Amino acid sequence: MASVQDIAVSAAINLLSALAFLLAFAVLRLQPFNDRVYFPKWYKKGIRSSPKSSGPLVKKFVNLDFKTYLKFLNWMPAALRMPEPELIDHAGLDSAVYVRIYLLGLKIFVPLAVLSFAVLVPVNWTGKTLKNITDLTYSDIDKLSISNVPSGSLRFLAHIIMAYVFTFWTCYTLYKEYSNIASKRLQFLASESRRPDQFTVLVRNIPPDPDESVSEHVEHFFCVNHPDHYLTHQVVYNATKLAKLVEKKKSLLNWLTYYETRFERNPKKRPRTKTGFWGLWGKTVDCIDYYTERIQKISEEEAVERERVTSDPKAIVPAAFVSFKSRWAAAVCSQTQQTSNPTVWLTEWAPEPRDVYWDNVAIPYVQLAVKKLLMAGALFGLTFFFMIPIALVQSLASIDGIKKVLPFLKPLIEREGIKSIIQGFLPGIALKIFLILLPTILMMMSKMEGHTSLSSLERTTAGKYHIFLLVNVFFGSLITGAAFEQLQKFLNQSPSEIPKTVGVAIPMKATFFITYIMVDGWAGIAAEVLRLVPLIMFHIKNTFLVKTEKDRELAMEPGSINIATSEPRIQLYFLLGLVYSVITPFILPFIIVFFAFSYVIFRHQIINVYVQKYESGAAFWPDVHRRVIIGLIISQLLLMGLLSTQDFARSTPLLLVLSILTIWFHRFCKGRFESAFVKFPLQDAMVKDTLEKATEPNLNLKAFLQDAYVHPVFKGIEIDRPAAIDDEENNPLVSTKRNSRRSSKACSGGVTPELILEEVTSYLT
Amino acid sequence: MASVQDIAVSAAINLLSALAFLLAFAVLRLQPFNDRVYFPKWYKKGIRSSPKSSGPLVKKFVNLDFKTYLKFLNWMPAALRMPEPELIDHAGLDSAVYVRIYLLGLKIFVPLAVLSFAVLVPVNWTGKTLKNITDLTYSDIDKLSISNVPSGSLRFLAHIIMAYVFTFWTCYTLYKEYSNIASKRLQFLASESRRPDQFTVLVRNIPPDPDESVSEHVEHFFCVNHPDHYLTHQVVYNATKLAKLVEKKKSLLNWLTYYETRFERNPKKRPRTKTGFWGLWGKTVDCIDYYTERIQKISEEEAVERERVTSDPKAIVPAAFVSFKSRWAAAVCSQTQQTSNPTVWLTEWAPEPRDVYWDNVAIPYVQLAVKKLLMAGALFGLTFFFMIPIALVQSLASIDGIKKVLPFLKPLIEREGIKSIIQGFLPGIALKIFLILLPTILMMMSKMEGHTSLSSLERTTAGKYHIFLLVNVFFGSLITGAAFEQLQKFLNQSPSEIPKTVGVAIPMKATFFITYIMVDGWAGIAAEVLRLVPLIMFHIKNTFLVKTEKDRELAMEPGSINIATSEPRIQLYFLLGLVYSVITPFILPFIIVFFAFSYVIFRHQIINVYVQKYESGAAFWPDVHRRVIIGLIISQLLLMGLLSTQDFARSTPLLLVLSILTIWFHRFCKGRFESAFVKFPLQDAMVKDTLEKATEPNLNLKAFLQDAYVHPVFKGIEIDRPAAIDDEENNPLVSTKRNSRRSSKACSGGVTPELILEEVTSYLT
Repeated sequence: MASVQDIAVSAAINLLSALAFLLAFAVLRLQPFNDRVYFPKWYKKGIRSSPKSSGPLVKKFVNLDFKTYLKFLNWMPAALRMPEPELIDHAGLDSAVYVRIYLLGLKIFVPLAVLSFAVLVPVNWTGKTLKNITDLTYSDIDKLSISNVPSGSLRFLAHIIMAYVFTFWTCYTLYKEYSNIASKRLQFLASESRRPDQFTVLVRNIPPDPDESVSEHVEHFFCVNHPDHYLTHQVVYNATKLAKLVEKKKSLLNWLTYYETRFERNPKKRPRTKTGFWGLWGKTVDCIDYYTERIQKISEEEAVERERVTSDPKAIVPAAFVSFKSRWAAAVCSQTQQTSNPTVWLTEWAPEPRDVYWDNVAIPYVQLAVKKLLMAGALFGLTFFFMIPIALVQSLASIDGIKKVLPFLKPLIEREGIKSIIQGFLPGIALKIFLILLPTILMMMSKMEGHTSLSSLERTTAGKYHIFLLVNVFFGSLITGAAFEQLQKFLNQSPSEIPKTVGVAIPMKATFFITYIMVDGWAGIAAEVLRLVPLIMFHIKNTFLVKTEKDRELAMEPGSINIATSEPRIQLYFLLGLVYSVITPFILPFIIVFFAFSYVIFRHQIINVYVQKYESGAAFWPDVHRRVIIGLIISQLLLMGLLSTQDFARSTPLLLVLSILTIWFHRFCKGRFESAFVKFPLQDAMVKDTLEKATEPNLNLKAFLQDAYVHPVFKGIEIDRPAAIDDEENNPLVSTKRNSRRSSKACSGGVTPELILEEVTSYLT
Repeated sequence: MASVQDIAVSAAINLLSALAFLLAFAVLRLQPFNDRVYFPKWYKKGIRSSPKSSGPLVKKFVNLDFKTYLKFLNWMPAALRMPEPELIDHAGLDSAVYVRIYLLGLKIFVPLAVLSFAVLVPVNWTGKTLKNITDLTYSDIDKLSISNVPSGSLRFLAHIIMAYVFTFWTCYTLYKEYSNIASKRLQFLASESRRPDQFTVLVRNIPPDPDESVSEHVEHFFCVNHPDHYLTHQVVYNATKLAKLVEKKKSLLNWLTYYETRFERNPKKRPRTKTGFWGLWGKTVDCIDYYTERIQKISEEEAVERERVTSDPKAIVPAAFVSFKSRWAAAVCSQTQQTSNPTVWLTEWAPEPRDVYWDNVAIPYVQLAVKKLLMAGALFGLTFFFMIPIALVQSLASIDGIKKVLPFLKPLIEREGIKSIIQGFLPGIALKIFLILLPTILMMMSKMEGHTSLSSLERTTAGKYHIFLLVNVFFGSLITGAAFEQLQKFLNQSPSEIPKTVGVAIPMKATFFITYIMVDGWAGIAAEVLRLVPLIMFHIKNTFLVKTEKDRELAMEPGSINIATSEPRIQLYFLLGLVYSVITPFILPFIIVFFAFSYVIFRHQIINVYVQKYESGAAFWPDVHRRVIIGLIISQLLLMGLLSTQDFARSTPLLLVLSILTIWFHRFCKGRFESAFVKFPLQDAMVKDTLEKATEPNLNLKAFLQDAYVHPVFKGIEIDRPAAIDDEENNPLVSTKRNSRRSSKACSGGVTPELILEEVTSYLT
């Protein structure tokens, strides 16, 4: 058990490393030649461009204005200064809501910390159980924790009351936040400009028809069943192979450029390479000729495949994007059942074009059900039994294992230096590699499950990752032994024993989690802002690949918030905070620092760096809410277990009631808010339709929608920039919608679209 | 433990009593004066009328044609003879599908029994464990059961294989049946004549508006948001008090009629009564004057209340029935979300008018959520702790209890005869009364939960009753001790121990359940056909109240299938069959006899007796399906527990996989079929609309819908016969839709509605 000194040392180390990262960042970001790494978003938006100062060349790369270094933390207040509405316009609702998760953490835990230190710490401190124990497993921190209260003491009443207070405060904050974000989402959807997905429905599982092609079948079906509303549709081609070819061609083109650049710089020597794996073996060839030839070949293949896909009726999958004349009709079609067989003609609100995950658009119903079952089984196996193959690999990767499998290496590995490296490094590396690969594995599993949009893929992956972290990091740290051993143990324990087993371990693990928070939460987040990998990648690309300004644009990798991995990690902090708020309040300040620090860092990142791949309108919030509630319930059950081992089992019914109330609160919130994240209400659709009809009576909607949902490979080389992004880029940041609304009101005074919108809204509600 | 002899005796007794009931029924039903008790449905349909034979008076009351008595079981083949389509026309889909539950039982258990006796009985019989045991707790039946197989024997593999076979057969049968009933339901809905609920949506939680009345608000909202489709609406009055007054007046009128009849028969003595409780005390008055006066008074009250309800805007609740111009529009409105706030303007497909439960139409959202929480808690308490108050009452109802509370009764109750009555009778009576009241209590709880239709009330009550029976009858019989003691025990046992504890008890309780099946399932069902209570009630009413032919019509109480209580009881037989099919196959023939016998009896009853209060189109089937699946999973878990106590724990993973597959099958079926029972698909709506437009272009739909959803009290004295029933009665049975379709095709040869329907359908699908 770590003492206060140990924690102070650890805190100092982590604070220092965090500070080092921040300093490095402060220095690096001021250098003009790093500008595109630390401010890529502004470049993508077209507001910022490469420095064109007329001064000496060195100034173009290195910042020599030393005054700026003094104010190296200046970016922090700057990150906080942008008001939220502007942030939503600038970075999208997803990002703006994502940083609000950290804010939610602050809103929950600051009052909890104050109350804990005001009420529980004195109660614990004066408990004086631990004074009599000379056992070394207790430290000073434990004197502030519930461990210091004698068994069966009435002081536990204070903890139960505080559990109630904390639950009510958390629920209240969650409710306010859910309501706030639901209304932000509705506002966001209402203020959005015309987008193809507002008019479009994704139709899946179109039944085969012997007489008609898919396209004719779709047209007939919707002409009959939505006669006044159907406008047009877009069939979906099975272009997976074509997309692969296009992707490969792009990579070959990159290599060609690389060698051409090398040749230009050193015209005397034509670059040569071997044709085998990674250029290690095989025939030696002239690079430029070789790649030109391969590109030629792949272009031909691509043309053939493109021809096949567009002409072969079998390349059309039984799914289509159907567009309607109004948002109202699209909302109706997406929310209703079309035929008496609920496994065909499935309609759902179409994802925005850049959010579509094309490979999953056409999966038959039965296959989908089987895949979901298999993936559920796989997730269970992965969560509880992942240690088995890793332990196997680890045993192979030991000295003895290597000796057995590869005996000829024996003399090499028995050298002292190499031996120690193998012993110290190899066993851990299998686990490390697995943990790094885990999000990718989980994402592959989600893809197998058949979700049709990138956003839903990320959301379900986050769900899987959350389960994994909960079982293996939280419970795994509390109870030693691999997850499958725990599972075995729990199956043979009574349901009332499980919270006890885990509950007892909690106070003892407080210092461990404090260290964890400092390493992962403080230093880890500070490393995030430095962007070391993109920094290096950009400079490599800039040196070898970039020829034109457009190439440099492509070389920037702004990255994006990865909901799938970062959100479940935040949830771990919520869980720790909620569990320890009653038991060891000493942990709360560390968590608060994490939330505050992350909030600043991520606000800076979404303003200056990240460019989201899609915009789901904060569709992930119901998951965030649910997971905090799960944390809350876990905290209550563990407190229940802990108290019943402290001769205070009388509290069990009280805490059970609290859990039931919490679950009920969750269901209430679900009914109250969730549909705002899933459905498009008819009234809102009607308001937007009416408005549009009034302002643009001659709009040619069909032309607008005709090519919106074409598979990206059919848009030529612009594979990663489909129409919707272009559309957004044509509205540069400087004239945000918010600003334009203000200005239009101020200058014209006539009937603006916004005025009509307000009129209609006020009339309707 | 009962031996084969005991069971034979019990079987003989129960068979004899069942036969006695059947004989009594056979004799009684042939008497003309009982005709209205045993064939009320035909009277209600207007096909049968009172015998008007011209023979001697005695023939009008007693059947003297002795030949007819010889064929006393004739009704059985007659009941089976009516083909199912005709049965659906005659008795409605609800009833026809209800008897199919028994048929499902036969379909599942006949093959199971054959397989069990062919495979498992020989395996068990040759096990020979019990030969060595001289313990008296085992009987010959146990030699056929799994108890006869030695611990750890490989013979258990046969049981596991059969568990798989049985599960697959049950699932296959369930799937076929679900598919069959879903298509029957869709056919039924498609062939239905024009009904108000097809065009109507129930709108609840209409938000208050400061400027407009509820009616205006509804009209404006739907005119704006469903502009081309809105037709009309009907506000809902809070007429609970008025309905009570009307009900009371009806009862007083009955009493007046009774006394008037008495006075007519004995004109010398005017009947007199006391005004107090049940005429036991209070002032003595002249009955006819007294009741005339009271009726006068209550009529005035009723008029005042009626005036108040119709004129006071506060008597209008924030809910309305909104009708649309087409079925398509109603289907759209019921399946979509109207506004961004999902707790207001809630729309759902309207129940048919006679199915509406008026008192629950307007309950605010938050209140509803709270009520559901409270009712869930109450159900839990009722299921597990109902024995506590009953044990209290029982202790009070004992000799000592009475002595303590009412000491003055001491000399009376110490007499030998009275003492034995109290000891033998009183303790049981509290439990009996509770069990009789239980369905009513559960129905009250469902009403509190806020369901808006009688059919959904019955369905949720059935769900509650099922839980109660499962816990208290099935598990309660397996494990001795009250439910709350079991609960206590299970909470302190490990999850893997619970199936063991219960599993071990199963083979031992086989004979108990066989007896239970014979008493409840054989004799009980035979008693059902006799209709003793309605028989007596009818003759009492006929003697004292009936004056006109119409009165006689009202005196008939045909009764109806009570889904809320009978369906969960059938589920108990499914559960017993599934659990014992592998363990003690000897029980299966008894269950098969129950299903076969019930099928015949209930088919007879729905043809000749029961008149359903509403028609939900077999909306209860998803529940039936789910509960059989629950039975299946319980049977697998218990087998798992039993085998792991027999040194065969290796089987646990195998059986767990089976359970997971079963759950997956359930989810698959849910996705595949359930929406057919919940939603109205747009295509089907469109087909019916198109058809109607073609055949009746000048239909005045508004007039048809105007008064459909008026609260029954506003239809004057016809309180229990709202419009929809009248409508049905105007189409007498003889010309069923089926017949008319056949004949119209045969005779006209022109364009009939059915032909158009078929055209449109074949084109669309």
